[in-house]
Amino acid sequence: PGKKVLIVYAHQEPKSFNGALLKIAVEELTKQGCSVTVSDLYAMQFEPRATRNDIVGQLHNPEAFNYGVETWEAYKRGGLSKDLVEEQKKVQEADLLIFQFPLFWFNMPAILKGWMDRVLVQGFAYDLSKVYDGGLLQDKLSLFSFTTGGSQEMFSKEGIGGDIRYVLWPMQHGIMHFCGVKVLEPHICYAPENVSEEKRKEMLAAWTQRLKTLWKEEPIDCSPEWYFK
Amino acid sequence: PGKKVLIVYAHQEPKSFNGALLKIAVEELTKQGCSVTVSDLYAMQFEPRATRNDIVGQLHNPEAFNYGVETWEAYKRGGLSKDLVEEQKKVQEADLLIFQFPLFWFNMPAILKGWMDRVLVQGFAYDLSKVYDGGLLQDKLSLFSFTTGGSQEMFSKEGIGGDIRYVLWPMQHGIMHFCGVKVLEPHICYAPENVSEEKRKEMLAAWTQRLKTLWKEEPIDCSPEWYFK
Repeated sequence: PGKKVLIVYAHQEPKSFNGALLKIAVEELTKQGCSVTVSDLYAMQFEPRATRNDIVGQLHNPEAFNYGVETWEAYKRGGLSKDLVEEQKKVQEADLLIFQFPLFWFNMPAILKGWMDRVLVQGFAYDLSKVYDGGLLQDKLSLFSFTTGGSQEMFSKEGIGGDIRYVLWPMQHGIMHFCGVKVLEPHICYAPENVSEEKRKEMLAAWTQRLKTLWKEEPIDCSPEWYFK
Repeated sequence: PGKKVLIVYAHQEPKSFNGALLKIAVEELTKQGCSVTVSDLYAMQFEPRATRNDIVGQLHNPEAFNYGVETWEAYKRGGLSKDLVEEQKKVQEADLLIFQFPLFWFNMPAILKGWMDRVLVQGFAYDLSKVYDGGLLQDKLSLFSFTTGGSQEMFSKEGIGGDIRYVLWPMQHGIMHFCGVKVLEPHICYAPENVSEEKRKEMLAAWTQRLKTLWKEEPIDCSPEWYFK
């Protein structure tokens, strides 16, 4: 109760299974007394491209554009574009970040990758030698909740897609852990498009159920062993 | 000689180190008699978002938008948007795909991820049970050429970033191998921004050198062992 949650949501269709998972999270967390904010990336027409437009006013070095340097400098002088400042404010205020999306090509959809690329800039999310356990977004939790096209068997160690944890490494370790954010167990719904209506309902009920005790969960140990053991 | 190469390039600045690597590839491969095409994604203002705009005309199911289903159906009836058709034509004609980009958050920049999400649709790149070694883009080679922010030590098995091969899994196996494309050894320039001018010149020379004998290379064995052994 009183906790703040930001859900970054990347699906085009409210009637989709991802849309249903989002709705459940908003309702259940609100019911618990949490304050829930949703960044509905497609509805916002969120810009995924990292360009010069992200910097308001003069560039630090107009001779050769370096996105990392320019956004760092812009962050320090308060010169990032309005859409980024708004997202950063939501992140800053949140106790928990939930990312809800369909897995596209063993990773998040481009629109969500663009959110990571543009919002989590140096100075805001990390800094020189302030990375991983020293990252700037400490005391926050994150949770990757996604659907897959492939089955659970395909995404197993012996399956053709390999252990699903392999695809979690760049997202959970490379992004969240890098910024100092703790990571809860991912929530994965395998191939909702290929299962029965009955099974889909079970998946939705499992998500509701998990959310009820979410705040009692311990973060995973975000070490290579968790991913590749 | 006579080979066709598509370079998909994702950097905003021609004067960057990535820009220098692109220039070298275009010059060296052209000198060899290859026909080289470049998709300069930022210059093209390539759209990374997977939306309804990618389908020309009526939707298969306007009641609930499903991007995978809609692009598959649109592909079959020749109803994909013009920018996608153009990229697919370039891919179709190419013997080799080179992806040149800076690693952003343990993965490709969103603009390049969007190229993967939107161009490699079902029917074109893969189909029902036509995946991995049975994928539709067989007889093509691919090569991921990228720069990192972190050092080679950081991206080692004992380093905080883990083995660099971990980040290659979603890109090489999850995308290229999935579509039947063979994968050449990646070409990685570690932390060009943090090394001496001398060292940067050596990196550029090494790329030129590698390209000279590129067509004699054997693809990697794209199995879990290559990535996680």
